[in-house]
Amino acid sequence: MSRLVFLINGPNLNLLGKRQPHIYGDETLADVERECGKLAEELRLELRFHQSNREYEIIDWIHEAREIAGGLIINPGAFTHTSVAILDALNTFDNPVFECHISNVHKREAFRHHSYVSLRADGVIAGFGTHGYQLCLRSIARIIDSR
Amino acid sequence: MSRLVFLINGPNLNLLGKRQPHIYGDETLADVERECGKLAEELRLELRFHQSNREYEIIDWIHEAREIAGGLIINPGAFTHTSVAILDALNTFDNPVFECHISNVHKREAFRHHSYVSLRADGVIAGFGTHGYQLCLRSIARIIDSR
Amino acid sequence: MSRLVFLINGPNLNLLGKRQPHIYGDETLADVERECGKLAEELRLELRFHQSNREYEIIDWIHEAREIAGGLIINPGAFTHTSVAILDALNTFDNPVFECHISNVHKREAFRHHSYVSLRADGVIAGFGTHGYQLCLRSIARIIDSR
Amino acid sequence: MSRLVFLINGPNLNLLGKRQPHIYGDETLADVERECGKLAEELRLELRFHQSNREYEIIDWIHEAREIAGGLIINPGAFTHTSVAILDALNTFDNPVFECHISNVHKREAFRHHSYVSLRADGVIAGFGTHGYQLCLRSIARIIDSR
Amino acid sequence: MSRLVFLINGPNLNLLGKRQPHIYGDETLADVERECGKLAEELRLELRFHQSNREYEIIDWIHEAREIAGGLIINPGAFTHTSVAILDALNTFDNPVFECHISNVHKREAFRHHSYVSLRADGVIAGFGTHGYQLCLRSIARIIDSR
Amino acid sequence: MSRLVFLINGPNLNLLGKRQPHIYGDETLADVERECGKLAEELRLELRFHQSNREYEIIDWIHEAREIAGGLIINPGAFTHTSVAILDALNTFDNPVFECHISNVHKREAFRHHSYVSLRADGVIAGFGTHGYQLCLRSIARIIDSR
Amino acid sequence: MSRLVFLINGPNLNLLGKRQPHIYGDETLADVERECGKLAEELRLELRFHQSNREYEIIDWIHEAREIAGGLIINPGAFTHTSVAILDALNTFDNPVFECHISNVHKREAFRHHSYVSLRADGVIAGFGTHGYQLCLRSIARIIDSR
Amino acid sequence: MSRLVFLINGPNLNLLGKRQPHIYGDETLADVERECGKLAEELRLELRFHQSNREYEIIDWIHEAREIAGGLIINPGAFTHTSVAILDALNTFDNPVFECHISNVHKREAFRHHSYVSLRADGVIAGFGTHGYQLCLRSIARIIDSR
Amino acid sequence: MSRLVFLINGPNLNLLGKRQPHIYGDETLADVERECGKLAEELRLELRFHQSNREYEIIDWIHEAREIAGGLIINPGAFTHTSVAILDALNTFDNPVFECHISNVHKREAFRHHSYVSLRADGVIAGFGTHGYQLCLRSIARIIDSR
Amino acid sequence: MSRLVFLINGPNLNLLGKRQPHIYGDETLADVERECGKLAEELRLELRFHQSNREYEIIDWIHEAREIAGGLIINPGAFTHTSVAILDALNTFDNPVFECHISNVHKREAFRHHSYVSLRADGVIAGFGTHGYQLCLRSIARIIDSR
Amino acid sequence: MSRLVFLINGPNLNLLGKRQPHIYGDETLADVERECGKLAEELRLELRFHQSNREYEIIDWIHEAREIAGGLIINPGAFTHTSVAILDALNTFDNPVFECHISNVHKREAFRHHSYVSLRADGVIAGFGTHGYQLCLRSIARIIDSR
Amino acid sequence: MSRLVFLINGPNLNLLGKRQPHIYGDETLADVERECGKLAEELRLELRFHQSNREYEIIDWIHEAREIAGGLIINPGAFTHTSVAILDALNTFDNPVFECHISNVHKREAFRHHSYVSLRADGVIAGFGTHGYQLCLRSIARIIDSR
Repeated sequence: MSRLVFLINGPNLNLLGKRQPHIYGDETLADVERECGKLAEELRLELRFHQSNREYEIIDWIHEAREIAGGLIINPGAFTHTSVAILDALNTFDNPVFECHISNVHKREAFRHHSYVSLRADGVIAGFGTHGYQLCLRSIARIIDSR
Repeated sequence: MSRLVFLINGPNLNLLGKRQPHIYGDETLADVERECGKLAEELRLELRFHQSNREYEIIDWIHEAREIAGGLIINPGAFTHTSVAILDALNTFDNPVFECHISNVHKREAFRHHSYVSLRADGVIAGFGTHGYQLCLRSIARIIDSR
Repeated sequence: MSRLVFLINGPNLNLLGKRQPHIYGDETLADVERECGKLAEELRLELRFHQSNREYEIIDWIHEAREIAGGLIINPGAFTHTSVAILDALNTFDNPVFECHISNVHKREAFRHHSYVSLRADGVIAGFGTHGYQLCLRSIARIIDSR
Repeated sequence: MSRLVFLINGPNLNLLGKRQPHIYGDETLADVERECGKLAEELRLELRFHQSNREYEIIDWIHEAREIAGGLIINPGAFTHTSVAILDALNTFDNPVFECHISNVHKREAFRHHSYVSLRADGVIAGFGTHGYQLCLRSIARIIDSR
Repeated sequence: MSRLVFLINGPNLNLLGKRQPHIYGDETLADVERECGKLAEELRLELRFHQSNREYEIIDWIHEAREIAGGLIINPGAFTHTSVAILDALNTFDNPVFECHISNVHKREAFRHHSYVSLRADGVIAGFGTHGYQLCLRSIARIIDSR
Repeated sequence: MSRLVFLINGPNLNLLGKRQPHIYGDETLADVERECGKLAEELRLELRFHQSNREYEIIDWIHEAREIAGGLIINPGAFTHTSVAILDALNTFDNPVFECHISNVHKREAFRHHSYVSLRADGVIAGFGTHGYQLCLRSIARIIDSR
Repeated sequence: MSRLVFLINGPNLNLLGKRQPHIYGDETLADVERECGKLAEELRLELRFHQSNREYEIIDWIHEAREIAGGLIINPGAFTHTSVAILDALNTFDNPVFECHISNVHKREAFRHHSYVSLRADGVIAGFGTHGYQLCLRSIARIIDSR
Repeated sequence: MSRLVFLINGPNLNLLGKRQPHIYGDETLADVERECGKLAEELRLELRFHQSNREYEIIDWIHEAREIAGGLIINPGAFTHTSVAILDALNTFDNPVFECHISNVHKREAFRHHSYVSLRADGVIAGFGTHGYQLCLRSIARIIDSR
Repeated sequence: MSRLVFLINGPNLNLLGKRQPHIYGDETLADVERECGKLAEELRLELRFHQSNREYEIIDWIHEAREIAGGLIINPGAFTHTSVAILDALNTFDNPVFECHISNVHKREAFRHHSYVSLRADGVIAGFGTHGYQLCLRSIARIIDSR
Repeated sequence: MSRLVFLINGPNLNLLGKRQPHIYGDETLADVERECGKLAEELRLELRFHQSNREYEIIDWIHEAREIAGGLIINPGAFTHTSVAILDALNTFDNPVFECHISNVHKREAFRHHSYVSLRADGVIAGFGTHGYQLCLRSIARIIDSR
Repeated sequence: MSRLVFLINGPNLNLLGKRQPHIYGDETLADVERECGKLAEELRLELRFHQSNREYEIIDWIHEAREIAGGLIINPGAFTHTSVAILDALNTFDNPVFECHISNVHKREAFRHHSYVSLRADGVIAGFGTHGYQLCLRSIARIIDSR
Repeated sequence: MSRLVFLINGPNLNLLGKRQPHIYGDETLADVERECGKLAEELRLELRFHQSNREYEIIDWIHEAREIAGGLIINPGAFTHTSVAILDALNTFDNPVFECHISNVHKREAFRHHSYVSLRADGVIAGFGTHGYQLCLRSIARIIDSR
């Protein structure tokens, strides 16, 4: 099983740490990438870290991942609630998928309570801040190690 | 901030590892307790590990925790979807609360998609198997350490 | 008609006055019991004052009341919204039943707007603070006096 | 804080005691006014007692009350369920508002279960018969006395 | 049983025949009154014919009718769908009530499909044009004659 | 325009007058046919009076009517609420259609509040007892006379 | 009270035992008839056993039963969920009615969870296989015997 | 396959025969136990007969049954409609489960139409009075005999 | 695999070409039968072409088809939206089933958007006019040829 | 086309600037009238500026407007969400109608998201403060000028 | 009328034949393009065959088509259920539009039952596999030929 | 406060004036840009006028605007109803946001009645044609001028 992991961030996450810190904290996406990179190394995983505001780019990355990656972590941002296309792309991916939200979406507006991605994800984590990405990495490493 | 953490399991989790292994895996609750104990020690947390099929016992533990604990991890089992009383108890607790489900409840029956506990929990994790408990422990340790 | 009145409080009300004072005020349940006791005496009622986090205990008290009590006041707390079993127990009780909520539940979360108990209660009072219990006592005394 | 209290009754309550006694009892509105008057005196409150089938008249009384009254008791009758305009008027009133229904509306037709007025009222009482008005008066007196 | 019949028209019906003739036809309310008057005479009924844009005036007429009328025909216009107060007024009236709509409301917007008045009316007629009023008159005459 | 009118009754109406007289009265369908026949003669209409428990027979009669009848009165009984096929048949009929219910269906079970037939009917009458059929006959006569 | 019992089966039950044995078992309707016949004899009941794919035939049998039968067992098949006409027919029948489903309909598609027939049936049994018919027979015998 | 059968009754059933006889009949639970005991003997089944107002006790009995019982009959009373925890417990039990309600719950309040237990039960019976328990016993005996 | 194909039309389709040509076009059912016959011959299929306003006749034809036909094309007309019985009949048929609607039902009234038949059909076609039948025939031929 | 414009304000707007300034700003209705008057003059429009807490008065003004006005601006206040009668009155008015809300109603309580008036209004503006009235005036002037 | 036809495929269809063959079969999109090309030639149509994971590219192609194409076939994939923007683009296109789904979407998850595209499409086909595209081509050819 | 204003148009608005003129009028987007430019100059605002069919481009423009613009006007077209991502982008923007629709969306299909953008917009305008953009410009100028 491949030790390559894709970590994909959806729309508006490029502004992480620059907007609404009471919801999303004050770490930037570059900070997150750096920390995840360090942990991945420690866990002997290869990490591809992406962010896009473009739904198709996310779909393309998932298509790319399905041929080479052993795991996939996705924070689909707003696309969580609206994109059947990302769900369909994930349905073509056979290895572990973890869905990660920085805030606890269940405490926010009602339309944030439903996730298309959860219909495919093996695990879902929400409200653990940017630390959640690292927990997902640990979990994927554990699964890959155990195979 | 207290380094004491309550880890509370709800109804039917006493059967963990003995029933429906395709959903819940084959580790028993005793296994989980042992592993969480080890990790807690490593993270310099004190752990109180509980399970009950009794809603009132869970409420009583939360009341107890509110005076002494620095964090609380709860897998409310079936009470997730039906117990406003546990939500109300949690609402009296001021430190971090993490909700943990072994399976990804969002892929199961519709009535398992709603959680009263999520309305209070700081973070929610589902579908990471029994490993999810450890991720919650790590996250609480991190918060306590940072205070 | 018996002058004995049961006053039953549901889950988490043991914490009254110790938590969320902006919602529930700062009187403790012991304060409430003392004041209600005084008023009951004044109204020549005998009062049995209970609180439990256990649904079955509440059911058992109602069963006990049906044979001896002339009236019943209940603040079912969170069980208001979830317990058909308490409703069924109340359905076996023939004398006046008053439902009492300390806060105005209609201004809170949507799931607090529905009450199973109201389907049996003769009267419902919400948002009068702990004073509401006394108003219920007065009302029961008035009914017993008029029979 | 002003000791003047408005007690406002909505449509069809002019027929109180003359229609459907199994629902509303047999006291007339004049009886209610007399008894409330007596109690108000006892509680050292000044009472303005009104009834109207006209929504605008009720709105106008609330506007009048907002400048001079220390409390307001309202039985909006059928307007409970349909009048956003009365809710908006009450939203401009800063002192205690109690909503009073003679019958337990929660046991009647489904459309009587929702109240616009409850979104503003501090307290709601239903099913205590005409005695409910007196309980509201006592509660307002208590609040005014305690300020 | 009194041979007096109230025929009450709700808001905007003063414009009958002057607006939207494809929905309401081109007879004016005066025409309707004249024809109904003629038929009433023929059926030996005494007719009081009213129209108002004021909900309270309609309520007041119903209150008046309850003491003297043997039957009541009402076209509540837009109040059909919104006025619980008129329903409550009708609930105090013991003799036959017929609800009459000029157009077939079931073929129009969804919010016109529900009628509060139908919850009390003995009969409902819709889509028979202004002729519907006459059919109601005939039906009331028949009932009065048969008592 | 043809002076032939079809009057079609749906399932269970063959038992009219023999069952549930508190809902449907005690006239039999034969009584209704006789009275309608008399009135039709008076109005110079030719009447075909039918009843069937078979949906297809009702459809076939409507198909027959569309080539020869000037009007159609239908009491679809239980089919009112369930038969799109009868609605589709009526949609092929160009002359006036009146829907007639003996009881006021709006006061009965919720599933009786919706009528597929009303989506096509020109007029709907409910709760006028068996007299409703005669009112429909009068209305059709009036329309035919006025063409 | 008549000892004659109608046992009526609805559409597609003629294929019993020939289709979907994982849902309906492998007994044919003839087998069921034979076994029920034997048991009826034992219980001293006279049995009329019917099956039809025609809604009207089922209605006609119920009409027939209402004059002569002491009890009625019905497996309405697909009509359970769609036929108000059969409900209305059953509403004219005064003796015990039992509704019987071979499979547990509550575990199947959502549209099979609602039964119009249950609104009239005295008892409902589902998921006991073809043995359910015999349990209904026993129950009817017991009621008849006890009168 | 074990010939031991658990028969479990939920909350308020201890009052059977003492309350609401128009719904539940006048046999007491002791009567039911006696009759079921007799029939069990006749069918060569061993019977454990339980009743509790405590959800956890019911869960514990089911856990106990899963290791030793060949069948389980449950009348969950009010827990039918609210307890996911009992459903989850039943999901761990591999032998036949029958759900039994004394009254026909489908004719009562809407909230009694949904059963969590039915999602697991093999068969459901409602409205056959206390005789329903015996029918369940017969059915379990038949299944055990046929294995 | 049998080359016999049933083509079944539901209620009101006997009027095809004679009613509402803006929705259904102006070809008659006889025209459709002729064209389908020609194409069937060309594709070496044997065609049985039916139409009925009777639900049971459609069920009977499906039962007949299940023993002899290699494919089934059905335009259930209004029964599409209301007949669980036809769905159940189709569930007993093992070969390809295609559902065909002349108009695009998704653009019409909301109640035409749901099809029970689609829950079994392998393919659904709507809005291709009467040409849709031919496309279904081609598709069945292709499947039979490929086996 | 008439240059006369009606500007009609609904209930509670007489308190504008005196209540809830965080929602409605601090301009009074007199201020609004003055500014609108100035702008109207500039745009060569004649302005009739009204406010009422009475639904019937608003209906009467619309009836008056339909004979003489070239345009109508309405802020129906709470009647927006509840008054079919005002919608029906507006449906008789043939010239431009603009609906104006001071606050952005879409960000407030759910019951404020639906407007009956919007079903007739040509344009709707919300959340532009009291400046919104002036924008409506400009738009009407522009339409009148262009005719 | 132009003989140019656009055939547009939405997101994830680039993976056709490479994923989930039990749902989508094993033909690749290149296979589909080749076969459609052959048939188009045979039918004397010019074909532009497109696929994109980008919503805007699909919109742009539709805009391009509206000026030059005589017909348009679209399999919007996941955008079927979520894209109002594609619906709006199609609303600007005047020639025939056919919507094509490879699988029968009505048998899959509930969110796949609704299609925005169907609100504009002239015809919809689902569940005919990749053969469905050819049926659409035939239908467009037929329409173009008949003009 | 910056005098720079972004005016952003969503999908299909590039076709403005070229399609469905009965809904959108006959001005092209170039006309709108020219007129808005003129007015902006007059109001001493700097205008950036954009249109895109690409959701991500709109998000990127909003991100760009948040650092430099004093106000933002957006007609999100179809994205109004489906894009949480645009809402999230707008949530990062601190200055005034006005949402502008050319047609009155509340009179069109139900799915056009809900706007994600309105949850953030300060003001919403719909149905004022292309003139609405100018009203938004005026309002932004007014706010900027007043700061």
